[in-house]
Amino acid sequence: MLEELGIKAKAASRLLAKLGQNEKNNALLKVADALVAHADEIITENSKDMEYAKNKGMSEALLDRLKLSKKRLEGIAEGVREVVALDDPIGEVLSMKKRPNGLMIGQKRVPMGVIGFIYESRPNVTVDGFALTFKTGNAIILRGGSDCINSNIALVKVIKEVLKNEGITEDAINLIENTDREIARQFMKLNKYVDLLIPRGGAGLIRTVVENATIPVIETGTGNCHIFIDSSADLDKAIPIIKNAKLQRLGVCNACESLVIHKDIADKAIPLIVDMLSANDCEIRGDEASVSISSYIKPATKEDFGTEYLAKIISAKVVGSLDEAIEHINKYSTGHSEAIITESYENAQRFLDEIDSACVYVNASTRFTDGFEFGFGAELGISTQKLHARGPMGLLALTSTKYIIYGNGQVRV
Amino acid sequence: MLEELGIKAKAASRLLAKLGQNEKNNALLKVADALVAHADEIITENSKDMEYAKNKGMSEALLDRLKLSKKRLEGIAEGVREVVALDDPIGEVLSMKKRPNGLMIGQKRVPMGVIGFIYESRPNVTVDGFALTFKTGNAIILRGGSDCINSNIALVKVIKEVLKNEGITEDAINLIENTDREIARQFMKLNKYVDLLIPRGGAGLIRTVVENATIPVIETGTGNCHIFIDSSADLDKAIPIIKNAKLQRLGVCNACESLVIHKDIADKAIPLIVDMLSANDCEIRGDEASVSISSYIKPATKEDFGTEYLAKIISAKVVGSLDEAIEHINKYSTGHSEAIITESYENAQRFLDEIDSACVYVNASTRFTDGFEFGFGAELGISTQKLHARGPMGLLALTSTKYIIYGNGQVRV
Repeated sequence: MLEELGIKAKAASRLLAKLGQNEKNNALLKVADALVAHADEIITENSKDMEYAKNKGMSEALLDRLKLSKKRLEGIAEGVREVVALDDPIGEVLSMKKRPNGLMIGQKRVPMGVIGFIYESRPNVTVDGFALTFKTGNAIILRGGSDCINSNIALVKVIKEVLKNEGITEDAINLIENTDREIARQFMKLNKYVDLLIPRGGAGLIRTVVENATIPVIETGTGNCHIFIDSSADLDKAIPIIKNAKLQRLGVCNACESLVIHKDIADKAIPLIVDMLSANDCEIRGDEASVSISSYIKPATKEDFGTEYLAKIISAKVVGSLDEAIEHINKYSTGHSEAIITESYENAQRFLDEIDSACVYVNASTRFTDGFEFGFGAELGISTQKLHARGPMGLLALTSTKYIIYGNGQVRV
Repeated sequence: MLEELGIKAKAASRLLAKLGQNEKNNALLKVADALVAHADEIITENSKDMEYAKNKGMSEALLDRLKLSKKRLEGIAEGVREVVALDDPIGEVLSMKKRPNGLMIGQKRVPMGVIGFIYESRPNVTVDGFALTFKTGNAIILRGGSDCINSNIALVKVIKEVLKNEGITEDAINLIENTDREIARQFMKLNKYVDLLIPRGGAGLIRTVVENATIPVIETGTGNCHIFIDSSADLDKAIPIIKNAKLQRLGVCNACESLVIHKDIADKAIPLIVDMLSANDCEIRGDEASVSISSYIKPATKEDFGTEYLAKIISAKVVGSLDEAIEHINKYSTGHSEAIITESYENAQRFLDEIDSACVYVNASTRFTDGFEFGFGAELGISTQKLHARGPMGLLALTSTKYIIYGNGQVRV
């Protein structure tokens, strides 16, 4: 079954690589329209998933990820239209240089081929993933979580219908409908047909993929994101940024999970932070120094500093210096997004240089780590590895290159 | 032992990331000088490896890879000096754009961190690998083959001495001296400390790494490289190119292993190819059509078309069309380097577009697929995967990026 899907996707990828930009864009626009036109059917199927998930006792944060509404489908369709509006990177020759022997060597941007996608209960990812891979001339094989299988079947059905009507191969999008874990493991070893595997979900899923896949993987991000309140921080900026980063949306990887506070500003900053977070029912688990400043703060265990809560909980630590802050963050961070709140030019630059994360902010919320917010039109995930793509992944992450060389009889000496 | 090496390399990588271009270049120049100054000691150690390898019955091609001479050491030192002459890509901000909300988002080039390197009996790779990783602010952990362990220990000793004298951490270069296979397997799972793993060697080594590593891998290349003689080929170009691609050096991944010949030129081309290859004692294994043209050609088995000989053997197949040639090549090629010999503009462009390999040539030898020949100053291997780096890898393949974001209080709406 998987092998068959692989063969179909590989064959589709050869056809997709030859499609022109106009053909791809027209199809995507029709997909966007069809998602809205078929909203009722899709929401009906999504309701089954929601019902099942609620009965299973899924958390509020995860239910929120799973839910589709008319408004959300319109948002998803709008995302597809934004992808249409982007330039197609395929075919661009990045550079073409003449070597001393007369060879002309250029690097041409080409599709990756077949992209595998393993994710959890976020049906919007199904459409985002398709739009970006299709725009870049790739075929996609999707393996969504069992929690959103009805939503995914409905979404893929709508997309396949559009492709069929447009005279484009339906095999551009492929869904593994069997949500058995063993099937997922086999999928991760389908090197013969799949060029790139992108897992998107919780830490457990990502670890499973990294440990089992033989296909090249882009590790996408669990986010244990930090905000460091430097001694020179402007607290009028700091408090709204912390509020936004922790509370605007709980179940997302770019939410702030840990505060690091310079000791020289702790007495002033912590009471304000506690006021704001307690007013929003957000628990704080801190080190001794922070607990001594506010009794609202509960003592943190060692594990707290490494935890991505995805809930109304945040950890807090007081540090003696910027160096200590950088060391603490580089130790506990998952390399996703970190921010410094500071008015110091030097500390801002040092934080940007020395924090080893995909996205490093000065005086802004970590919640901006997102393909849309970065202007990519959509996003396939946030890469927390250093290979190929790091940070929010848009179109370019889904392309490869090849060298094209024009000669006139050259041989190597 | 491995864990300790990982900790040392990770710590070194944080220091190397802060080194300036001048410090790095000065150290590399001293390394180049030291390699030549210590040539005698290095060659003495290399002789032990050569002696052992000869007794083991190693093939001529592999012995050639293993051998170090004064001239080769001078060549290796020259390679290091060429790396010095290259621009340091670290710290460049690739783009910096202002978003509608005022956030300034830029992408900065940074070192990868710690690079692991698993390779076979090519001691020159030890120095190339160090020069490129050091230039880009990375630490390296080397795991060379048991066949060149004495050469590697000698080379690494020379490099460590230079680093020590320059006041730079010796842990920038680390050699796993235990050449046990089980140690290599453990090394491949050292994700906590190693950011990227590059295997370089035969198909067996590479498969072992791809199947066992949990660290992100760049698959480097076995090369079953093809040359297609189109119906419009200029045979005055074709014959020297075939000679060069097959015979200039046998044990290399960019050597041509298979000829594909258009039927309309086969009667004219094959006798000339046979004359040239037979005069050089090169065996040809061909399909029925080619055997019927020359009795020098032995019948090929099915396996021949998928074989990287690394010896004086080449396969040959006659095809009826460009389409058939492209299909045959995309089926049997390892995605390394392929060339078309043609005077047809359209066929040249179609070959460049539709052949799915890292390097695609018109009217030139596949032997040019090489970091030096491409102008990278050195090379860490030829990537045959599509992720991160494809084709000869120079400095850029050893870097990552991170997003740096300048704000003034922005929160996400």
